[in-house]
Amino acid sequence: MSPSADSRPPTDSPRGERALVRAIGQMISPSAGETPPRVPFGDDMAAVPGESRLLWTTDTLMDGVDFESGRHAWNAIGRKALAVSLSDCAAMAAQPIAALASVVLDERLSHADALELHRGIFELGQSYRCPLVGGDTNSWQHPTVISTTVLARVEIGANPVPRGGARGGDTLWISGPLGGSLLGRHLWFEPRIALARTIRDTLAPRAMMDISDGLVLDLSRMLENSGCGARLDRTALSNAIHADAQTMALEDARPALDHALYDGEDFELLIALTPLSNPDTARALGLIQIGEIVAGAADITLREADGRERALEIRGWEHFRA
Amino acid sequence: MSPSADSRPPTDSPRGERALVRAIGQMISPSAGETPPRVPFGDDMAAVPGESRLLWTTDTLMDGVDFESGRHAWNAIGRKALAVSLSDCAAMAAQPIAALASVVLDERLSHADALELHRGIFELGQSYRCPLVGGDTNSWQHPTVISTTVLARVEIGANPVPRGGARGGDTLWISGPLGGSLLGRHLWFEPRIALARTIRDTLAPRAMMDISDGLVLDLSRMLENSGCGARLDRTALSNAIHADAQTMALEDARPALDHALYDGEDFELLIALTPLSNPDTARALGLIQIGEIVAGAADITLREADGRERALEIRGWEHFRA
Repeated sequence: MSPSADSRPPTDSPRGERALVRAIGQMISPSAGETPPRVPFGDDMAAVPGESRLLWTTDTLMDGVDFESGRHAWNAIGRKALAVSLSDCAAMAAQPIAALASVVLDERLSHADALELHRGIFELGQSYRCPLVGGDTNSWQHPTVISTTVLARVEIGANPVPRGGARGGDTLWISGPLGGSLLGRHLWFEPRIALARTIRDTLAPRAMMDISDGLVLDLSRMLENSGCGARLDRTALSNAIHADAQTMALEDARPALDHALYDGEDFELLIALTPLSNPDTARALGLIQIGEIVAGAADITLREADGRERALEIRGWEHFRA
Repeated sequence: MSPSADSRPPTDSPRGERALVRAIGQMISPSAGETPPRVPFGDDMAAVPGESRLLWTTDTLMDGVDFESGRHAWNAIGRKALAVSLSDCAAMAAQPIAALASVVLDERLSHADALELHRGIFELGQSYRCPLVGGDTNSWQHPTVISTTVLARVEIGANPVPRGGARGGDTLWISGPLGGSLLGRHLWFEPRIALARTIRDTLAPRAMMDISDGLVLDLSRMLENSGCGARLDRTALSNAIHADAQTMALEDARPALDHALYDGEDFELLIALTPLSNPDTARALGLIQIGEIVAGAADITLREADGRERALEIRGWEHFRA
C-alpha cells in the first residue's frame, strides 16, 4: 500500500515491512508432513485450506497515509478501500465473490459520512459483482481506518497466477503506463479483473502481480519469489511513463522516469510471459513490454539507450521502516 | 466489541453504531428478485454468496479501546484479536477454517513486538485448527489496530444458528457466568466453538449469539432480530454472576448483578431454546437459564424475587455514539 502523500525516505531496512513479513511467513509456514498451501505465503492472495478454488485477501487503509479525508470524498475513499483488494484478485486472475468491511471511524465523523464511506465500498462492489455482505463498525479518537477482505474464486480448470513463477528469458510487461497516480488515479483506478483473466487465458503468464508500492519495489518482490533478476529497457520504458508522471516531473523536477519506476498506487499488472508467448497478442491487449527476466541474477538493472547497464536501487513505498 | 477500560456513558442514540449498522443493512440488502443471503445482515457471521456451507466474519481491535498495549503482552493481544472472531464462529455453531490478519502497527513497535502479536494470533489459530494463512502489514504514527477475518464451514446437514430465530415461550440460557471480564477474562477467554456445536446437535437451539457487548445490549439485538421481548429472572440470574463481577462490585460499589447485565467481553453464548428442549440436557452442558422470551413485547424486563417486574435499560458497549 502506498501513501497518498509521503515524503519519508524509502528504505528496505532489516526492521522494515519486508523483514517482518518474512518472519511471519517463516512462523506460519507448514511443518514437515503438513500440506503446503496452493499459493505460497506472500503472494497477492492466500489460499483457503480445503477449498481448492477459493482465494482471499485483506487490506487496510489509513487516513493520512492511504487517503486524506480532508481532501477526498468519503465515497471515493470507500471505493478505494475495496478497489485495492479487487486489484489483488486481478493479480491472481481470480473472480471476486464478496467483500467484508471492518471500519474504525474517527469519532468526529458524521453518520452521513460513515454511510457514504460504506456506499463507496458497496457501489464499487456492485459494479464488479463483488457484493459487500457484512463487516464490523467501531469508532475511536484517532484517524479512520478501513479494512476490507475479499473472497475470490478461480474457475474450474484454471489456476491462480502466482507472483513467484518468473524464469530467466521471460519477457516482462505491464498493463498500462505508470507514475504520478497521486494526481488522482490512486483513488479512481479500475482493478484489472477482466483483463487479468484474458491475459491468463490467452497468454498463460508465468507470473503476475499488481503494482501497488511502485514498479521497482514490486518487481523486486516478484524476483525474490521467483529467484531471478530483471533487466529493464530504457527505450521500452519510454512507453511506460504515464502523462501524470510527466505532469508531476514538471512540478517537482524529478525525472518522469523516476515517477514511473518508484511511485506507488498505479494498480496496473506486472506480468512475466514465457519466450513462447506471442508478443503481438500481448500488445493487442494493451500490454507494454518493459524488459526481461534474467536467470542467476538477483538485482534489477536498467539498460540505457546506449546499451550501458546500471543497477537500480530497490526502493518504493514500504511500511514499518526503521 | 467492548472496551478494555471505558467510562463514557453508554447510549443507544440514533447516531450510534446501531443506527449506522441499520442504515448499512438497508443499503446492501438484496433488491427484489435477488436471492437473499442464507444468513440475514447483522448476524454474527455473513454468508458467502454461492458457497452454501461457508460463513465469514471480520473484527477490528484498537489499542486503548479493546486492549492496552502498555499493560497487556503483545502475544495476548494477538490471541484476543483472533479469539473474538472465533467467538463469532461459535455463535453460529460453525467450524473455523482459516484466518487472515491485517495490522496497522504503531511505528514505535519493535520488530519483536510485531512478531509476538502475530505469534499470538498464530498460536490460538493452531489450537482451534484455524491457521493464520495471510494478511497485510502497515504502520503509522497512531495506536495499533488489528483486523482479523475468519472463514468457517457449517457441516453437511447442519444449518448455521441465527440470532433472529427466538420465539415467545422459548427459554433463555447462557453458557457461563457473566461480568467483570476486565479482570482478565476479556483477554484469555476460550471461544465456545465445540460447545456451540454440541448445543446445536443436542438442543436444536432456535437462536444463538455470543455476548460481546454486555448481556442486555446483545440480548436486545437478538430480540430485535427475532421480533420479541424477554423477561429475565432475578433468582435465576444469581447463578449467572461471575466471581469476577463480585470482585469488581467490591471495588466499585456497583451491584454485581449490574456487572453481569452490562459488562462486555464475556464471550459466552446466549441461547434461546424451544419449550420442547430438555432443560436437563442444557444443564448437563453447563448452560444456565436466565429467563424466557416473550411474544408481542419489545423490551427486556427483570422479574424480582418478589414477583414484581421492571423494565431494564438497554445499554452496554456501543461504538460511534453521539
